[in-house]
Amino acid sequence: MKNLIESLAQETDSKIVMLVMDGVGDIPADGHGTPLQEASTPNLDALAKDGVLGQFDPIAPGVTPGSGPAHLGLFGYDPVENNVGRGILSAFGIDFDLTERDVAARVNFCTLDADGNVIDRRAGRIPDDVNKRVCEKIRKNLKLPQGIELFLETVSQHRAMLAIRGDNLSDQLADTDPQHTGVPPLEPSALSPEAEQTSQILKDILKQVREILADEEKANMILLRGYSGFRKFPSMEDRFKLKACAIAEYPMYRGLAKLVGMNVRPPYSGFEDAVAVLNENWNDHTFFFLHVKKTDSYGEDGNYDAKKDIIEQVDRIIVPGITALNPDVIIVTGDHSTPWPMAAHSWHPTPILLHGKLVRRDRTEAYSEIDCQQGGLGRLPLINLLPIAMACAEKLAKFGA
Amino acid sequence: MKNLIESLAQETDSKIVMLVMDGVGDIPADGHGTPLQEASTPNLDALAKDGVLGQFDPIAPGVTPGSGPAHLGLFGYDPVENNVGRGILSAFGIDFDLTERDVAARVNFCTLDADGNVIDRRAGRIPDDVNKRVCEKIRKNLKLPQGIELFLETVSQHRAMLAIRGDNLSDQLADTDPQHTGVPPLEPSALSPEAEQTSQILKDILKQVREILADEEKANMILLRGYSGFRKFPSMEDRFKLKACAIAEYPMYRGLAKLVGMNVRPPYSGFEDAVAVLNENWNDHTFFFLHVKKTDSYGEDGNYDAKKDIIEQVDRIIVPGITALNPDVIIVTGDHSTPWPMAAHSWHPTPILLHGKLVRRDRTEAYSEIDCQQGGLGRLPLINLLPIAMACAEKLAKFGA
Repeated sequence: MKNLIESLAQETDSKIVMLVMDGVGDIPADGHGTPLQEASTPNLDALAKDGVLGQFDPIAPGVTPGSGPAHLGLFGYDPVENNVGRGILSAFGIDFDLTERDVAARVNFCTLDADGNVIDRRAGRIPDDVNKRVCEKIRKNLKLPQGIELFLETVSQHRAMLAIRGDNLSDQLADTDPQHTGVPPLEPSALSPEAEQTSQILKDILKQVREILADEEKANMILLRGYSGFRKFPSMEDRFKLKACAIAEYPMYRGLAKLVGMNVRPPYSGFEDAVAVLNENWNDHTFFFLHVKKTDSYGEDGNYDAKKDIIEQVDRIIVPGITALNPDVIIVTGDHSTPWPMAAHSWHPTPILLHGKLVRRDRTEAYSEIDCQQGGLGRLPLINLLPIAMACAEKLAKFGA
Repeated sequence: MKNLIESLAQETDSKIVMLVMDGVGDIPADGHGTPLQEASTPNLDALAKDGVLGQFDPIAPGVTPGSGPAHLGLFGYDPVENNVGRGILSAFGIDFDLTERDVAARVNFCTLDADGNVIDRRAGRIPDDVNKRVCEKIRKNLKLPQGIELFLETVSQHRAMLAIRGDNLSDQLADTDPQHTGVPPLEPSALSPEAEQTSQILKDILKQVREILADEEKANMILLRGYSGFRKFPSMEDRFKLKACAIAEYPMYRGLAKLVGMNVRPPYSGFEDAVAVLNENWNDHTFFFLHVKKTDSYGEDGNYDAKKDIIEQVDRIIVPGITALNPDVIIVTGDHSTPWPMAAHSWHPTPILLHGKLVRRDRTEAYSEIDCQQGGLGRLPLINLLPIAMACAEKLAKFGA
């Protein structure tokens, strides 16, 4: 069944650019305004003055989102109904090409003692090269059942991604990570009858892994969690009649864009290149997702100056690159907030700027979280952002007569 | 099934204080600003300047709440799904200790004419001492079935509370109040089969009551409405992992706090005492509900000056008592608005002040309904308040990866 927005969506040539500065939202602290307030952003401020601001909740008021659900909200997908497992996000994060015959899981290398109890759930955070070596060792020595392929790929430190590929696999499986030390890893177990076969396959694999890693000092076992199959989402084209193009540097966000059927471009190198990719793809698409990661990374680092600096670079290089193309609608937003004083994602609503000739301009004159509190869009669930932008691009028909 | 907020709640030592000035919200009228605007409240204004404001709808925009649903919203319980019957609120109002074997109802003494028709649904608003005398008369003369206890307690004027206690009682019963004069009281009747027995017990009781009161001039019968059993709610500790403490002067609010499993302290006497009780209970709890009744009472009286004065007393005595304890999060709010020009509850959103080191401070500099209209929290359903406060106290985990 089509939802209301889907039933009203109409294909037009008008163009929407969604510029996402990941985690850009912040809070005033330590006598500083937010990085967005303090950064010199004449181009963003000009868009704000000519546009309308607001603050949007990625999931619900008070709820801190991971990157997966926050982006699904930006793309117009209910982030709670469509929650994506850790396994699939781990696969995205390393640019692994999941298929619909795969079940992926997040892997932690861990350390077992002589009795088989977990004594370190992170195997002393082994260096990446050790991680690569033991992944290779497992891949080389593992004997797989007929018709099953296995992929075990290093992420970083103690983290890896495991995917098994085959027919009729199911992700309805309980984690093997016991979440505590002093107890053995849990056995793989099926959460529903159709996962019984997959559970048996994993039991066999884990038994072999334990033998293969027996002589390792630290990484002598693996723990699995967040199993997920590649659930194909209805695409943004099917749902909203948008020809969507993703321009993103980091694999995780390209993976999320792929999940909703965007045409995902190869990673850009530098903001000038991102603008060049935007130009190259301009004529063939009607929706552009342009993702900047470093606002989030510097927020997570608690680095006020670097976060402010990257915002200024976006303002100087990317924003003029977008406005030069004269899109019908420009959205500037974060996916969520990553306040530098918290060095983590947060629940604070994300600051939204909407620009286009049909927006109802408000009195705000600069783009910041604090100006967004006064913005004419008010405070709304993030899932409302795409429909509002589509309306401003005349991509939604009238409801009722 | 846990809802989203429950599934993210995590126990921490951080402390949230929720100061509720009942019915504090008001409207400007007669050349006055609102009492909250006009009152001298330097301490509240300092919190507003360092915090963030907003306006929250207790039930839904335009809907005027009773005290029951408004407080349930404050405590994070859906006020429509969890609507509490009049019987249970009547019991709370007189500090009656309801058990899970009870069915309670609101009682009106009424006057019947010689034909048995109701001629006054309020028995001429008999004085309290007459009410007490007839309650006693009924209790003394009534013969109860085996295994059934009856409690009939004066509230005031023509109002009383009736509770019957026994096994397998049900509150699925139709009111006996016909809502009109000139007709006889309705017979008790079961709304579902499991209430048949309770209905028979009440028929028998009402038959006897009519005989016992036959010689009374005015209060010669009773009408019953709003039957309700004591539905045990999942506690705030079970749902939100909060160790909640209630500091309230009036029985109704202690009853509501008990319903959601708070540790309910005895009534305080004066605001200094309320602060003392807060201090005494500080170490053993993580959530404090501090209730001030008189803002509502003076609103109901239409008394502008007294409402303003009580706000100033709260500012002078209670607010410094709270800030001295340095809670992680302070909420200042009403449960609903009680504008003095209306002398009644209203639908106007309640003004919210949120203070804590992780709030996103806005540009407001004073606490009033009108400043709250400009507040950074925007306008939200009241049920979102507790999750936002919990987030600011770092009591909610991240959603999704």
